[in-house]
Amino acid sequence: LLFRRHSRTGVGTSNSGGESSKESSRSSTPVLAADRTERLRDKMRRRTESGDHWFSLEFFPPRTASGAVNLVSRFDRMGSGGPLFIDITWHPAGDPGSDKETSSMMIASTAVNYCGLESILHLTCCNQTKEKITGYLSKAKHLGLKNIMALRGDPVGADWEEEEGGFNYATDLVKHIRCEFDDYFDICVAGYPTGHPEADSYDEDLRHLKEKVDAGADFIITQLFFRADTFLKFVRDCRAIGITCPILPGIFPIQGYQSLRQLVKLSKLEVPEEIMRVIEPIKDNDAAIRNYGIEQTVGMCRVLLESGNVPGLHFYTLNREVATMEVLRQLGLWIEDPRRPLPWAVSAHPKRKVEDVRPIFWASRPKSYIYRTQDWDDFPNGRWGNSSSPAFGELNDYYLFYLKSKSSKDALLKMWGEELTSEQSVYKVFTSYIKAQPNCAGHKVMCLPWNDEPLAPETNLMMDELDKVNRRGVLTINSQPTINGKPSDDPIVGWGPPGGYVFQKAYLEFFTSSENVTVLLKVLKKYEPRVNYHIVNVHGQNTTNAHDMQPNAVTWGIFPGREIVQPTVVDPVSFMYWKDEAFALWIEQWAKLYEDESPSRMIIKYIHDNYFLVNLVDNDFPLDNCLWQVIDDMFELLDNPPDEQPTEQPVEQPAEESPVEDQSPK
Amino acid sequence: LLFRRHSRTGVGTSNSGGESSKESSRSSTPVLAADRTERLRDKMRRRTESGDHWFSLEFFPPRTASGAVNLVSRFDRMGSGGPLFIDITWHPAGDPGSDKETSSMMIASTAVNYCGLESILHLTCCNQTKEKITGYLSKAKHLGLKNIMALRGDPVGADWEEEEGGFNYATDLVKHIRCEFDDYFDICVAGYPTGHPEADSYDEDLRHLKEKVDAGADFIITQLFFRADTFLKFVRDCRAIGITCPILPGIFPIQGYQSLRQLVKLSKLEVPEEIMRVIEPIKDNDAAIRNYGIEQTVGMCRVLLESGNVPGLHFYTLNREVATMEVLRQLGLWIEDPRRPLPWAVSAHPKRKVEDVRPIFWASRPKSYIYRTQDWDDFPNGRWGNSSSPAFGELNDYYLFYLKSKSSKDALLKMWGEELTSEQSVYKVFTSYIKAQPNCAGHKVMCLPWNDEPLAPETNLMMDELDKVNRRGVLTINSQPTINGKPSDDPIVGWGPPGGYVFQKAYLEFFTSSENVTVLLKVLKKYEPRVNYHIVNVHGQNTTNAHDMQPNAVTWGIFPGREIVQPTVVDPVSFMYWKDEAFALWIEQWAKLYEDESPSRMIIKYIHDNYFLVNLVDNDFPLDNCLWQVIDDMFELLDNPPDEQPTEQPVEQPAEESPVEDQSPK
Repeated sequence: LLFRRHSRTGVGTSNSGGESSKESSRSSTPVLAADRTERLRDKMRRRTESGDHWFSLEFFPPRTASGAVNLVSRFDRMGSGGPLFIDITWHPAGDPGSDKETSSMMIASTAVNYCGLESILHLTCCNQTKEKITGYLSKAKHLGLKNIMALRGDPVGADWEEEEGGFNYATDLVKHIRCEFDDYFDICVAGYPTGHPEADSYDEDLRHLKEKVDAGADFIITQLFFRADTFLKFVRDCRAIGITCPILPGIFPIQGYQSLRQLVKLSKLEVPEEIMRVIEPIKDNDAAIRNYGIEQTVGMCRVLLESGNVPGLHFYTLNREVATMEVLRQLGLWIEDPRRPLPWAVSAHPKRKVEDVRPIFWASRPKSYIYRTQDWDDFPNGRWGNSSSPAFGELNDYYLFYLKSKSSKDALLKMWGEELTSEQSVYKVFTSYIKAQPNCAGHKVMCLPWNDEPLAPETNLMMDELDKVNRRGVLTINSQPTINGKPSDDPIVGWGPPGGYVFQKAYLEFFTSSENVTVLLKVLKKYEPRVNYHIVNVHGQNTTNAHDMQPNAVTWGIFPGREIVQPTVVDPVSFMYWKDEAFALWIEQWAKLYEDESPSRMIIKYIHDNYFLVNLVDNDFPLDNCLWQVIDDMFELLDNPPDEQPTEQPVEQPAEESPVEDQSPK
Repeated sequence: LLFRRHSRTGVGTSNSGGESSKESSRSSTPVLAADRTERLRDKMRRRTESGDHWFSLEFFPPRTASGAVNLVSRFDRMGSGGPLFIDITWHPAGDPGSDKETSSMMIASTAVNYCGLESILHLTCCNQTKEKITGYLSKAKHLGLKNIMALRGDPVGADWEEEEGGFNYATDLVKHIRCEFDDYFDICVAGYPTGHPEADSYDEDLRHLKEKVDAGADFIITQLFFRADTFLKFVRDCRAIGITCPILPGIFPIQGYQSLRQLVKLSKLEVPEEIMRVIEPIKDNDAAIRNYGIEQTVGMCRVLLESGNVPGLHFYTLNREVATMEVLRQLGLWIEDPRRPLPWAVSAHPKRKVEDVRPIFWASRPKSYIYRTQDWDDFPNGRWGNSSSPAFGELNDYYLFYLKSKSSKDALLKMWGEELTSEQSVYKVFTSYIKAQPNCAGHKVMCLPWNDEPLAPETNLMMDELDKVNRRGVLTINSQPTINGKPSDDPIVGWGPPGGYVFQKAYLEFFTSSENVTVLLKVLKKYEPRVNYHIVNVHGQNTTNAHDMQPNAVTWGIFPGREIVQPTVVDPVSFMYWKDEAFALWIEQWAKLYEDESPSRMIIKYIHDNYFLVNLVDNDFPLDNCLWQVIDDMFELLDNPPDEQPTEQPVEQPAEESPVEDQSPK
């Protein structure tokens, strides 16, 4: 059996650093190290030196809360293609430095902390006091942001004049950042391949750019342009006056007639004749325009990359994904499953750069884990055991947009049932989810409270087992298969640097009734000490055969020239915190869909109050996974209880007294 | 290939805790935990409850420095049989609390720190001030001793009288220890099965014993006796007056006529008629007396153990090993290769109880490693990497008795050559050692400066390879084979608790000439990144392909319900310290055997000054060890240098340019 844990397809397999990397440049890279500890400008230099082209993506903050949920979900999907970084624009009119879920600051913070993406926060200084700007920068630093795009911004009103000692140009902001924060931030500035519209001349604008770089900027991203030559001439002109830092072309795939017109108006750019000639006749056909935009962009990007003067491409996505992803695919820059440094998606917060172990419980809820551990001063960079008593934050904040389900209440009711009539109707929701089939009302079940994404395709391999056990009330929420030394570059289960070997102990986690647990405990006696278990109900009544509440490593890797990495553990202490969250999800996400005192709500509440959460680990990783056999044995004993059916069972050997050898799996 | 590192046969395979334990009592014991963290009284309780009989051994401090070297070597040998503890008597006349190598304090400290044996230090209080006693106890605590045998001691002179407020009885000492050191020490007191010779009566002596226990003693060891009934009656009498702690019988195997007479005189015991009747006629036949002593002791011990009132046996060894070991073997209590908690022999110092990783370099010199790290405040209980810059103590103290070779200068000269004529004569010493054969002068080479014991028997399996490479000047000093998931209870390579799997990466360490190193480096290019290497000369000139000076785990184990244990690493930082020690041994132990300026001394000095120390790790543990192939390739290239012999080699494919696939091992 080879399958994935029930993970969010996007998050679970995404590249944590958000960065793809070729085999060649990896092989001399320290494990887990460079991608996570290098600052952006160093990553750029390394990639430039190895000739390994990259791409980056620009987004703007959403207007609504549900827009924020969708954008974060887009970050996860687009992050899986391996951007070197993303950047978030600054919307002065949108309270950009606030804690609102739609603010530039919060969106950038979420991208870094919860999506693990290297991110640049834009910042405009026009009409701002130094105190205000320093406040924004301090907040950004505190949130783990490490990169700033320093911009002047558009003056409000026509009567704008330079202020003495104020922020009049982006150069002033660059100087201010370097003055107040020394070398902490990597700073990006804007370049205008055809000159800034307000500049007196192209040459004067180039001199301004040189000033920004001399003031401390690390690299340049350009305004969009429509011809490769425009950019390549601009780079030559920059080099000629002594600008040596990286210059990234801003790529704008034309995605529609209206968006093009609006952009042209704002940026005061002219669309070349040859493009307008194609577009005008098809201006009402969105699909045709997008296809043209993709084709035109791919052609231009090819010229840029082949010039040898372009280390990476920066895309203005307009918060859309189809066109940009298609361009990247055609260019061969979109790498669907870049090598993962660890089995789980790491956060990009500098404080977490040494994090290399997590409990398996949050495998499908990594954002919740990050949220609940955000106040930790220190992350275990060695053994989990070093942090003897992990202090998890409370999870009362189900409303936080990055923790919220992407489905509406209405959609959830359709998936999980407008009306529940029994515990069995709950079992059916689980089996519909597992088989990705419509429920009896005809709606596909795409998520569960513990898994906000459909099951990963690999899970198909064990669908029959999952279907069978869920049908009988073993409600599975997490699992992983046995792996005994697969190469670290295995496309499905590999992680970490090449040349290594990865291992796993089989894991299974589920809710089930107390009747089942009673029988399960009898069965588990036969599997001592092979199977470790923790069984707990909502009140914390806990049964385990684990030694001393020590963690059990369930995923580990052996790499050339390295210490052992053990990124996933079953940690008994953390399990008590996870238990609270896992049980609370029954109520918070499911029961509350229904009226108070309604039968549906009472059924979920009954399960919450009476079921147990069980986790099982098969320690014998060189053998076949025995956990399904454990569950089968439990069903067998439930079906044929030895006491009630003495005549149907040979008295001298009732099921629960069989020697281990007889019933354990081969 | 299956072989051991070149380890001291005694130390390398000895049970670190000094404790044997049956499978049954281990299976519920935490890994690495109980044996190392439990205090002696808790170990006793656990063993008593599981019915797992133990033994312990009493020694007295030696009179001479060479006696100390021999006694420590005896500790290592007798420790390998698994005593629960040893105890060291207190010799008031021998400056017992001093730093002299023959003092009671130093011998006990060496047993704990360097031999990893749970130890009890005797202490007598008669005629001592409280300050003096407190000083001894503080020193003992500082040295890592945790157990005290509290004794009155023999008053000096006949005119001894009780002092007001002084130490008149062992009870006073017990009270003093508890008062000054709270519960830190486990305290043992002496019991007299036939009553103390100075006591007014047997009953009064029992009351004194009760007082000692009530004052805080944890267990009792008795004076020797000759009949099982004597002891069993004593236990019954103790229980009758409310003494509930463990009472261990002091067993004295009769080993000779003189020693028996002397002991009887000192202890004022009477030897039973039935024993004297046997012994008198054979009093001049030592062997006969010893055989009788063994037989008599085994018989008595069987009665004791079968009584159900004896959890363990305490042996008065008289610093001899044959009789006691034979008795223990006949009783089935001597367990030659008890399960090792870790692949190396751990120290019993409380500070080191969490130590679970060491560099592989000191595998054959564990006492030197312990000495050089004795001042560490904290031992890495997780990753080696946590202790980023290990500060090793200097090793200038080659004179320390526990680091000294057991062979005399004379014996060393016979083994290593009275006169060396060339580097080749040094190579021959290495091959003679490896083949355990006499050198050309007819003397067996039993040790080398880096290995003070003959090679372990398992090394026979690779003797041909070792012989071949040493003959050509690849002077091997350490190695271990590849192991890919052997059960943790494997009799040869297993360690740790049952139910686990152990792994190793192949390791080879040797000295060789700079000419060989030049060619070796060419060969190693073909083995990137499979083989990691560090190559260094005495001046510290260092060549490596290791990433970032990070440690490489070369031994690790996976156990049920546990984190990964990785007890042995190739740590680049430590290697620079080991290099100093390994090169210094050429001079300190070998060159200095010869006259200044003598040719022999110059040859060793030449090797010291010009050779390199090389270590190689084969990272691909699931494949066959490729390190011998690396050396073979080096010899091949030395024999057929491509530049000098163009006509004998096809020009289009000189050896060093061959593709990796062609010459790497299967």
